[in-house]
Amino acid sequence: MTNDQNYAIIVAGGSGSRMQSAIPKQFLLLNGLPVLMHTILAFYNSASKPNIILVIPADAHGYWKKLCDEYNFTIPHQLVNGGETRFHSVKNGLNAINDENAVIAIQDAVRPLTSTTIIDNTYKQAKTLGNAVTAVKSRDSIRQVRDNASSSLLRDEIYLVQTPQTFQYAQLKKAYEQPFNTGFTDDASVVEATGEPIHILEGSYQNIKITFPEDIAIAELLLKQR
Amino acid sequence: MTNDQNYAIIVAGGSGSRMQSAIPKQFLLLNGLPVLMHTILAFYNSASKPNIILVIPADAHGYWKKLCDEYNFTIPHQLVNGGETRFHSVKNGLNAINDENAVIAIQDAVRPLTSTTIIDNTYKQAKTLGNAVTAVKSRDSIRQVRDNASSSLLRDEIYLVQTPQTFQYAQLKKAYEQPFNTGFTDDASVVEATGEPIHILEGSYQNIKITFPEDIAIAELLLKQR
Repeated sequence: MTNDQNYAIIVAGGSGSRMQSAIPKQFLLLNGLPVLMHTILAFYNSASKPNIILVIPADAHGYWKKLCDEYNFTIPHQLVNGGETRFHSVKNGLNAINDENAVIAIQDAVRPLTSTTIIDNTYKQAKTLGNAVTAVKSRDSIRQVRDNASSSLLRDEIYLVQTPQTFQYAQLKKAYEQPFNTGFTDDASVVEATGEPIHILEGSYQNIKITFPEDIAIAELLLKQR
Repeated sequence: MTNDQNYAIIVAGGSGSRMQSAIPKQFLLLNGLPVLMHTILAFYNSASKPNIILVIPADAHGYWKKLCDEYNFTIPHQLVNGGETRFHSVKNGLNAINDENAVIAIQDAVRPLTSTTIIDNTYKQAKTLGNAVTAVKSRDSIRQVRDNASSSLLRDEIYLVQTPQTFQYAQLKKAYEQPFNTGFTDDASVVEATGEPIHILEGSYQNIKITFPEDIAIAELLLKQR
C-alpha cells in the first residue's frame, strides 16, 4: 500500500560538469544492478512507500528506459526532466507534485545505501517538526578557509549533511520559489533561507555518495557486510 | 640516508575511550600487517626519511615489541609513552626532540594509507611557510549546530583536516606549552591558538582514518587499487 501523501524526489546531478564523465555515476553497476535502481528500491522497500519521482536529464531518459527493460525494473516511478543545476532539478520534481499534504523526501540518486529505517524516520520527523535533514557528526577536525586564511571550527558543532532531506510540502514550495543562489548546495540550505529552522536527524556513515570510481567497490563491500 | 632535521611523531589515541575497544585500531591487521606498521613504513619510505618517534600508551609498549618481533619489523623508531589525551601524547613526543632546526610531521597512527608524496610535500611546505596541514575539501554540505539550532556553512570554505600536519620546531614547542583545551582536536588548532597562520596542503580522500571495523576492508580495497 502506498502512503498517499509520501513522496520521494530522487535527483541526479545537474546537466553540468558532473554529468560529463563517461557514464554518470547513477548508472554504474553496483552488485550487478545500476546504482539508481538500488536507490529507488530503498524507498520502495521502506514502510513509508512513497510515490517516486525520478529527475534525470532529458537526454538520459531513453537510456534509463532501456536499462529498466534490460533489468526488468518495474518499480513504478514518474520520470521528470532534470534542470541546469541540482536546484533546478529539484524544482522540476516539485512541480510534478500537486498535493498540499505531501511530505517529500529529496534523495541523491547516487546514495544507494540509504537504509529504510532512516527513510522512515525522516518522514516521521518531518510530519511532526516540518523537516528532517539526515547528517552525521564530523569525524575529522574542520577548518574554514576565507580570504586565503584558515581557522579551526569546533568539531563537535559540525555535521556533514546527507540525504534523504524530508520536508512538508509548504516548506519546499516556498523555498524553491526563491531565486537560485550558489550557496544552495542542498535542500536544507534552500529551506533555511526562508527562515525555517532545520532539524537534523542522525544519518549513517555507511550512507555514502558514489563520487569516485573506488566508491563502487566500497559500496559493494558495505552491502556484503549488512 | 636520514634527513637529520626531519622528524615524524606518530601518535595513537589517548588512553581514554577510544582505546577501550578489544584491540586498538592501530594494531588491527591490514593486508596481514598491523595498521601501525603501514603508517611507519609510509614515513620510512618517503624521501624525507624522518627520525620516527612512536607515541603509544605505556601499557601497550610490551605488546608492540612482541608485534615487532613477530613481524620482523626492524624499522628504527623511538618509543615514547602516550598521555591522557592526544594533546598530551603529542607533547610527550615533542619532549623527545632536542633540535631547534627540526621539522616535525605529526601523524595519526591509524592513517596507514598516507602517500609518500604527501609526506614529502608537507616537509617541503613547512620548511618555507612554517607549517603544512593536509586537508581535503568537503564533498558534503555542512551544518553547524549551536544551542540546538543548525545553520548551513558555505561548503566551498570547508576543509576536512587529516594528517600529516607538519611544523617547524619553534611553532610546535610554543603551541604545546599552552594549557590543554577541549577545542584542541588536532595540532593545527593548537598552533593556531598561538596566533600562527595555518597553511593547508591538499590531502587525499584515500588517506582514510581507521575508525570503524569496516574501514579495514575499505583500506585493503584502496591498497589493491594502487
